[in-house]
Amino acid sequence: MADLYIALIHHPVLDRNGAIVTSAITSLDIHDLARAARTYELCTLFIVHPVEEQRNFAASVVDHWKFDFGRAHDSRRRAALERVRIVSDLDAAVAEAEHASGARPLLVHTSARTTRGTSYPDLRSRMEAPDAPPAMLLIGTGFGLAPAVAERADIRLAPVLGPSDYNHLSVRAAAGIILDRLRGH
Amino acid sequence: MADLYIALIHHPVLDRNGAIVTSAITSLDIHDLARAARTYELCTLFIVHPVEEQRNFAASVVDHWKFDFGRAHDSRRRAALERVRIVSDLDAAVAEAEHASGARPLLVHTSARTTRGTSYPDLRSRMEAPDAPPAMLLIGTGFGLAPAVAERADIRLAPVLGPSDYNHLSVRAAAGIILDRLRGH
Repeated sequence: MADLYIALIHHPVLDRNGAIVTSAITSLDIHDLARAARTYELCTLFIVHPVEEQRNFAASVVDHWKFDFGRAHDSRRRAALERVRIVSDLDAAVAEAEHASGARPLLVHTSARTTRGTSYPDLRSRMEAPDAPPAMLLIGTGFGLAPAVAERADIRLAPVLGPSDYNHLSVRAAAGIILDRLRGH
Repeated sequence: MADLYIALIHHPVLDRNGAIVTSAITSLDIHDLARAARTYELCTLFIVHPVEEQRNFAASVVDHWKFDFGRAHDSRRRAALERVRIVSDLDAAVAEAEHASGARPLLVHTSARTTRGTSYPDLRSRMEAPDAPPAMLLIGTGFGLAPAVAERADIRLAPVLGPSDYNHLSVRAAAGIILDRLRGH
């Protein structure tokens, strides 16, 4: 099974009007995605934010559970947050993943707005092949990843759809569903 | 396709020590589950809480998006929250669903702690059969549904698992994944 990483990206992302913005980090996103990353055996959840104050906030969320009250309080939270890394941009996440896995990860773009893309069973079987390269899922906050991120990607995943054409899931639900489709039992 | 309902239950649920408690409603759970319920074409998301103050809080979250600022601000939020109903107990949810669908829904218990249960493909094919009865997914907040809820259920679903034995997902991610397994495309 290929090494899998996930990057939660706060810039460049879109707002509701399609403008390129930087979104704020929320502690619940870190917790929910870290727990999903641990459940589906990802190597690392990268929290990507260009603003140092925001990265310090994210670090305080993680450290609370690693070192303080949380350590004794809930070991499962700690196990999840141990796989979180906070970085300033996607290049830093890619460099860390390449260093850890020994090969540059394929960048996998996710979006609710894509009209087509690689299917989940296709990517899953690629990742389950022997000697499959590592992969990194790029997940946008706000109203999704800016086009510049899509242009860097090696693979564009199809959107998550149910029976209807409404697909306005929260990032917390969407990330869990994408991981389940690629790694669920 | 069978009518499908989901009930987010705040009592009786377990705390981290296994004690039976009543958990607090959080606005983010309402939003995330409503968006997932809309994406997967559920009939209704029932928010189940025995305390009137808590139900009033939930109603204020929903009404904000239905009637106030939110109505103009984001029609997709409104579309999701229109399917939310707030009730005092599971019996009230079941009665409403029975009234709407013309048959009592099968109660489907979900838990991360179950060691076995009905598989997702099995329940999915049952629900896709012609004349399948309606079903209602019971989702616990806190550390999961109390045993009394499991005893009422007609079907117990297997836990959501990834490649590891760690399965401590957030209720927001778990509900999305369960709906995707039962209704995803």
